[in-house]
Amino acid sequence: MNEITLDLQREARLGFDEAIFCDGKNPAQIAAILVQAPQHGGRFLLTRLSPEKFDAISRQFGDQIDYDPVSGTGIFGAAKPLIKESRVALLTAGTSDVPVAREALRTLNYYGVAATTFNDIGVAGLWRLTEKLDAIREHPVIIVVAGMDAALVSVMGGLTPGVVIAVPTSVGYGAARAGETALHASLASCAPGMLVVNIDNGFGAACAALRILNIKN
Amino acid sequence: MNEITLDLQREARLGFDEAIFCDGKNPAQIAAILVQAPQHGGRFLLTRLSPEKFDAISRQFGDQIDYDPVSGTGIFGAAKPLIKESRVALLTAGTSDVPVAREALRTLNYYGVAATTFNDIGVAGLWRLTEKLDAIREHPVIIVVAGMDAALVSVMGGLTPGVVIAVPTSVGYGAARAGETALHASLASCAPGMLVVNIDNGFGAACAALRILNIKN
Amino acid sequence: MNEITLDLQREARLGFDEAIFCDGKNPAQIAAILVQAPQHGGRFLLTRLSPEKFDAISRQFGDQIDYDPVSGTGIFGAAKPLIKESRVALLTAGTSDVPVAREALRTLNYYGVAATTFNDIGVAGLWRLTEKLDAIREHPVIIVVAGMDAALVSVMGGLTPGVVIAVPTSVGYGAARAGETALHASLASCAPGMLVVNIDNGFGAACAALRILNIKN
Amino acid sequence: MNEITLDLQREARLGFDEAIFCDGKNPAQIAAILVQAPQHGGRFLLTRLSPEKFDAISRQFGDQIDYDPVSGTGIFGAAKPLIKESRVALLTAGTSDVPVAREALRTLNYYGVAATTFNDIGVAGLWRLTEKLDAIREHPVIIVVAGMDAALVSVMGGLTPGVVIAVPTSVGYGAARAGETALHASLASCAPGMLVVNIDNGFGAACAALRILNIKN
Amino acid sequence: MNEITLDLQREARLGFDEAIFCDGKNPAQIAAILVQAPQHGGRFLLTRLSPEKFDAISRQFGDQIDYDPVSGTGIFGAAKPLIKESRVALLTAGTSDVPVAREALRTLNYYGVAATTFNDIGVAGLWRLTEKLDAIREHPVIIVVAGMDAALVSVMGGLTPGVVIAVPTSVGYGAARAGETALHASLASCAPGMLVVNIDNGFGAACAALRILNIKN
Amino acid sequence: MNEITLDLQREARLGFDEAIFCDGKNPAQIAAILVQAPQHGGRFLLTRLSPEKFDAISRQFGDQIDYDPVSGTGIFGAAKPLIKESRVALLTAGTSDVPVAREALRTLNYYGVAATTFNDIGVAGLWRLTEKLDAIREHPVIIVVAGMDAALVSVMGGLTPGVVIAVPTSVGYGAARAGETALHASLASCAPGMLVVNIDNGFGAACAALRILNIKN
Amino acid sequence: MNEITLDLQREARLGFDEAIFCDGKNPAQIAAILVQAPQHGGRFLLTRLSPEKFDAISRQFGDQIDYDPVSGTGIFGAAKPLIKESRVALLTAGTSDVPVAREALRTLNYYGVAATTFNDIGVAGLWRLTEKLDAIREHPVIIVVAGMDAALVSVMGGLTPGVVIAVPTSVGYGAARAGETALHASLASCAPGMLVVNIDNGFGAACAALRILNIKN
Amino acid sequence: MNEITLDLQREARLGFDEAIFCDGKNPAQIAAILVQAPQHGGRFLLTRLSPEKFDAISRQFGDQIDYDPVSGTGIFGAAKPLIKESRVALLTAGTSDVPVAREALRTLNYYGVAATTFNDIGVAGLWRLTEKLDAIREHPVIIVVAGMDAALVSVMGGLTPGVVIAVPTSVGYGAARAGETALHASLASCAPGMLVVNIDNGFGAACAALRILNIKN
Repeated sequence: MNEITLDLQREARLGFDEAIFCDGKNPAQIAAILVQAPQHGGRFLLTRLSPEKFDAISRQFGDQIDYDPVSGTGIFGAAKPLIKESRVALLTAGTSDVPVAREALRTLNYYGVAATTFNDIGVAGLWRLTEKLDAIREHPVIIVVAGMDAALVSVMGGLTPGVVIAVPTSVGYGAARAGETALHASLASCAPGMLVVNIDNGFGAACAALRILNIKN
Repeated sequence: MNEITLDLQREARLGFDEAIFCDGKNPAQIAAILVQAPQHGGRFLLTRLSPEKFDAISRQFGDQIDYDPVSGTGIFGAAKPLIKESRVALLTAGTSDVPVAREALRTLNYYGVAATTFNDIGVAGLWRLTEKLDAIREHPVIIVVAGMDAALVSVMGGLTPGVVIAVPTSVGYGAARAGETALHASLASCAPGMLVVNIDNGFGAACAALRILNIKN
Repeated sequence: MNEITLDLQREARLGFDEAIFCDGKNPAQIAAILVQAPQHGGRFLLTRLSPEKFDAISRQFGDQIDYDPVSGTGIFGAAKPLIKESRVALLTAGTSDVPVAREALRTLNYYGVAATTFNDIGVAGLWRLTEKLDAIREHPVIIVVAGMDAALVSVMGGLTPGVVIAVPTSVGYGAARAGETALHASLASCAPGMLVVNIDNGFGAACAALRILNIKN
Repeated sequence: MNEITLDLQREARLGFDEAIFCDGKNPAQIAAILVQAPQHGGRFLLTRLSPEKFDAISRQFGDQIDYDPVSGTGIFGAAKPLIKESRVALLTAGTSDVPVAREALRTLNYYGVAATTFNDIGVAGLWRLTEKLDAIREHPVIIVVAGMDAALVSVMGGLTPGVVIAVPTSVGYGAARAGETALHASLASCAPGMLVVNIDNGFGAACAALRILNIKN
Repeated sequence: MNEITLDLQREARLGFDEAIFCDGKNPAQIAAILVQAPQHGGRFLLTRLSPEKFDAISRQFGDQIDYDPVSGTGIFGAAKPLIKESRVALLTAGTSDVPVAREALRTLNYYGVAATTFNDIGVAGLWRLTEKLDAIREHPVIIVVAGMDAALVSVMGGLTPGVVIAVPTSVGYGAARAGETALHASLASCAPGMLVVNIDNGFGAACAALRILNIKN
Repeated sequence: MNEITLDLQREARLGFDEAIFCDGKNPAQIAAILVQAPQHGGRFLLTRLSPEKFDAISRQFGDQIDYDPVSGTGIFGAAKPLIKESRVALLTAGTSDVPVAREALRTLNYYGVAATTFNDIGVAGLWRLTEKLDAIREHPVIIVVAGMDAALVSVMGGLTPGVVIAVPTSVGYGAARAGETALHASLASCAPGMLVVNIDNGFGAACAALRILNIKN
Repeated sequence: MNEITLDLQREARLGFDEAIFCDGKNPAQIAAILVQAPQHGGRFLLTRLSPEKFDAISRQFGDQIDYDPVSGTGIFGAAKPLIKESRVALLTAGTSDVPVAREALRTLNYYGVAATTFNDIGVAGLWRLTEKLDAIREHPVIIVVAGMDAALVSVMGGLTPGVVIAVPTSVGYGAARAGETALHASLASCAPGMLVVNIDNGFGAACAALRILNIKN
Repeated sequence: MNEITLDLQREARLGFDEAIFCDGKNPAQIAAILVQAPQHGGRFLLTRLSPEKFDAISRQFGDQIDYDPVSGTGIFGAAKPLIKESRVALLTAGTSDVPVAREALRTLNYYGVAATTFNDIGVAGLWRLTEKLDAIREHPVIIVVAGMDAALVSVMGGLTPGVVIAVPTSVGYGAARAGETALHASLASCAPGMLVVNIDNGFGAACAALRILNIKN
């Protein structure tokens, strides 16, 4: 059994499980994890960290955390140098999708990967997409963050041979069904080979991009 | 009460309720309605008429019915002259959407309205849409027949100031959810003012177009 | 590509995308858009603007916004002269549907179109509808705002050859399922040619009416 | 314990549980029950008895069963004399609702209660209802059999102070959701005091009517 | 048309529509209705009136309203004399069902009908039901208020030939699905002839009971 | 790793994974597994084996399989001697639940455990349950097989301190929702400590009973 | 009837129904039950008791209640001596599942049964499970508390011949669907004989364990 | 516009849209597409081609199509040489998942990519996975085909830093909900960075793998 355990520990060093999902945890529990940072390489990514919870832990850890209120993410410990070349394009259909896209951006940055954001390019104004198309297609991985009908996923998937990861968002009301419509529309996309993660899961999309950028082609 | 009754009968002459929805009726029931044709102006539109049911009634009524097996529609009685100018554009995202689009086309034709069909212009191949865009936009009413993610609805809605009626179809499997995803995506479209009818309801879309083309602007 | 871009910009002038959906935006984000008003013709329609958010921006913009707390809409900039003749009838089934109907009314008015409201004419008291029927039917477009069973949609659809747009509302509890029952009932209406928009989407119904009233018949 | 048991046996004589629901039973199982008829008073009501199953048992029992293929009901044993006065009005919105209404009618008749059927009075043609309104309202119990939007339930409930029992049917497609929309619309009716039974449950509506007509007011 | 209108007004006097559903109304709107009381016979039933809303209107109307905070009901105007004999049995499965049962009780009392409450007789402790069975069965109408699995409906339906009205409640969590499980279980009851109203709809159950007690058997 | 592997193989000898679920397999695939019987101890339990599939393999294996068409189970190989004392009570609410109960019975027998069946004791006729109550309660494990409202689960759970395993069945129509209502009602039971397996999963209930009867108390 | 009643009261002494579910009760109602403690043996288990409600009753009962804010449970009255040997293993997949696991632990302890908790052994880090496997398998009953995909249930079920009770939790967002995904995944587990209770129902899992540990094997 | 059009045509050469989804097409429609093969490079991938449809077109095209009945795929035209090194691991949880996995395999092969299949490694027998773990992890892309609880996705995701694509399958019954449970469980996986495609969509998973293997890292 030793061999497996060791092997798994090597994987643990890849870093995905160093993220602390703060949604179901109170400030005391978060603090209890942060004090263990030295044993975990001194760094942590915190996700779904509300401003209230950040305030509650900021007296003790505030100067060690780079906090972003838009995405609710905190980077604890030293910043990692960014690989200069942007490898991931982050697209949002509308302003309300920005927090989810920033969660993805911050996760990528935490692991040292640069990304470029293209905001507000919903398909109801198609020229906004077409005028940025060349810049977007230079990236091997394209993360599309879109709620409601998520039509941007199919449109983008038809315009690039690259990897497209859809992040459905809970933006919208009524028939948007808290993100389920965007989720199912992305899965049933008419463009072949679209990849989908959970609703509002910017962190997951970034982790998937990291797995993809890690492989040797 | 007389006034209402008269008024309603005038509306009845508009013709919407002369269509016979054959899905829950057996051939004997359909035949029993057709023999009453003389009291109803001699004409009927039959929808959801399967080839098997048409065969069953064709000995008695076959030469009086213009039957289209693709859409399962039958026009009983004399053809109405078509108004020459095409007022409605009928778009399909894929081949599987054609039966529903033809149900709409046949309904429009039954009421004397010409329409033009634009097939196979799903957004995964956007150039197929853009090269026909000018021809499509010449029509005051655009019926978009699309299943799965129904992304064509939002794309079209952003490219025209005209009326867009979405007909979600039950095409697809899994997350397409027998048309529910297309339905909810059309309702949650990011393009403003999209109008939606029931899944696979080509007849309803045509009736709505007729109501719209009937008004005096 | 220029041609498309120009063409799209012409459409942009139709105005549908000048509306600011405030639900997912904070006061600072709303203010940041409003200061760009001069580049957008000096006018904006704000929807889903809560009283709290209006208060937050009213010191800076209060005297430029005509705010309606019932519908949560704000009209920024100069009022547009109303075309005198009322072209749209706005029906509500009950008092709780009024905010959604007013969102539609305000949107129509923003674009210069007059409308007449007929409140509290649910079908459980049918005489309330029948006594106003002639006045309602004078309008080419009838918007029916109704929650719960949305029975008013079918009843109205059977009483007029005009265009009927159903706006299901999230009024009701339990089996009303936050508007889904009204939505699906409207889509499955026994009256032919009913058109449906998203739950509580008064803005969308008004945009659809504008598209319809815009066409040349 | 004796007292309860006796009491329950008295209830058993009321007859509700003598009905044999044939849907999950094969002809051999049905036959095995029928041979026990003498111990059960010599009479049985069979519901959901398909023509195929009836054929399979008809050699043995055919002359003892009064079979109705439309509703799939069979009455085994001697007919009960009908109480002359019709106490229940049975309304259907459309032709496809007739089988369910007939299941209710046959159940009422089996227990000796007369009923009057009013077919095809869907609200999309309101005058069809209003011209029969007086005849309908003479009945203390009104059973409304309707699918799709089930708007007839609310309309009828607003036009009578009598008892209204809604039987939603699985008629329709897409947003009709196999009867769920009719079911939820009936439950969320804007008319107060509507009573609802399961989808397509004509038998249950009749049993409820029998319970109601049984009480001493 | 006159005849219908008159007839409907007679029905209006039955009183079902004098109830004011306060859930979607603010105190000002409620007050605006109450000042019209003289034109409506001086009496009103208010349902879903939260303590906060009652406080807001109590300065102006407090001494005219008999308010019950448990059920959120208010009776405005003079009390009606109760018919002495209790005609309705009100059963609750557990303590959390009491507010819904009291809404039914208060509605019955508002219309002058007495009822008897039997609390906490869930089937997990069957002896609690059996020891009150004789008293319950003396009532022609039995309203069963139960959430979660609503097993009490079937058990009661099998123990009485009387009328059973099920009111599913939103009590419970997880698989109780906010009352949907109780609703569907009541509709799919193995006891024949169970009647069902919307989730938490004590008012509707009482209205149905009034319709039933009103008929002449 | 060896230790785990060995340990798991010991568990494999417990027999749960020797069952062959035939639903997604064609006769050729089933036959290909059966010829491997000697390596697996010469015995197999086959579940969801339709009569058609049994016929297809019966020429080759018919005399080695004890087939039961009611439950669609086949026991391949030598019968195991039954432990005489019945340890499991199998209850069905109605005739249509019998196939699922027999799947459980046959699974128990395959592993040498005797069980006693109590059929047709739905709660709508409570005396049928109470007269067999003492016999049922002698069993440490009670499996309740019930569809529709599954009220029998709660009633039984309140009448015994023993282990109750609910098997919801897909019996019923409409609001029975193909077994989901019975499933959710069992999970939301008002009786504490009810255990639930998947819809129609008689095999799973039996496996759970075997796990329970295996422990040393 | 006496015999049944007595028998049921004996069962009542088993204790399951002495738990007070505080979710739908206000402090006054809870207090009213607690004052009846002497008639119920002086002990009560309170579940879903929020800190706010505990505060409200703590002046009167605070020193009689052993309160645990993590699980929201209170033990009123004298502690019961724990049977030393741990018979139940309590597994959690993640930190957010701990409150539900503690509700189970506290319930077991209330009835005198010891249990051992194994936290944070989600399958995404399989070595965390394998290194504790021997300790876990020493327990006859294993309660697996897991949300999201609940993969731990199947993994554990394949690694032990013992009893596995799954408690799905409402942890997670989006496709976790408030615990429904964990619930359905547990029910559809590929490991045979998994037993499932309602979402977040730690109390129910403990009651089931008590029923199981009570039987004589 | 020319530039875009050209660019899109280049993408078309990537080949994704040359697949013919045969599910909604009749043999005549399929044949009509195949005769256009010369204009499309002489090759086509056919998916969801039932044996019946293959038979219907085999007289005309049979010798040009390499047909696989298990996956329902046909390769029309010359085979493409396989790149020798296997880059994709295809895992199935059970025998019933094989058809979906083969659809993926055949799609990869059609585009010249080799893959290795690992069948029957469901987590209920964990040792079957662990003994093949090293071989699986040599592949940069791992496609996990699993129905029911899809627990294999999370387990695999925790055991590799490589790319994991989950294909939920419609295998199972009841709570498996035709693949929805596997779909939502994969999306809510506790392993970070899992990528998901539509239910039963082996073709889509392969296309996604092709997009990933195409990028330059």
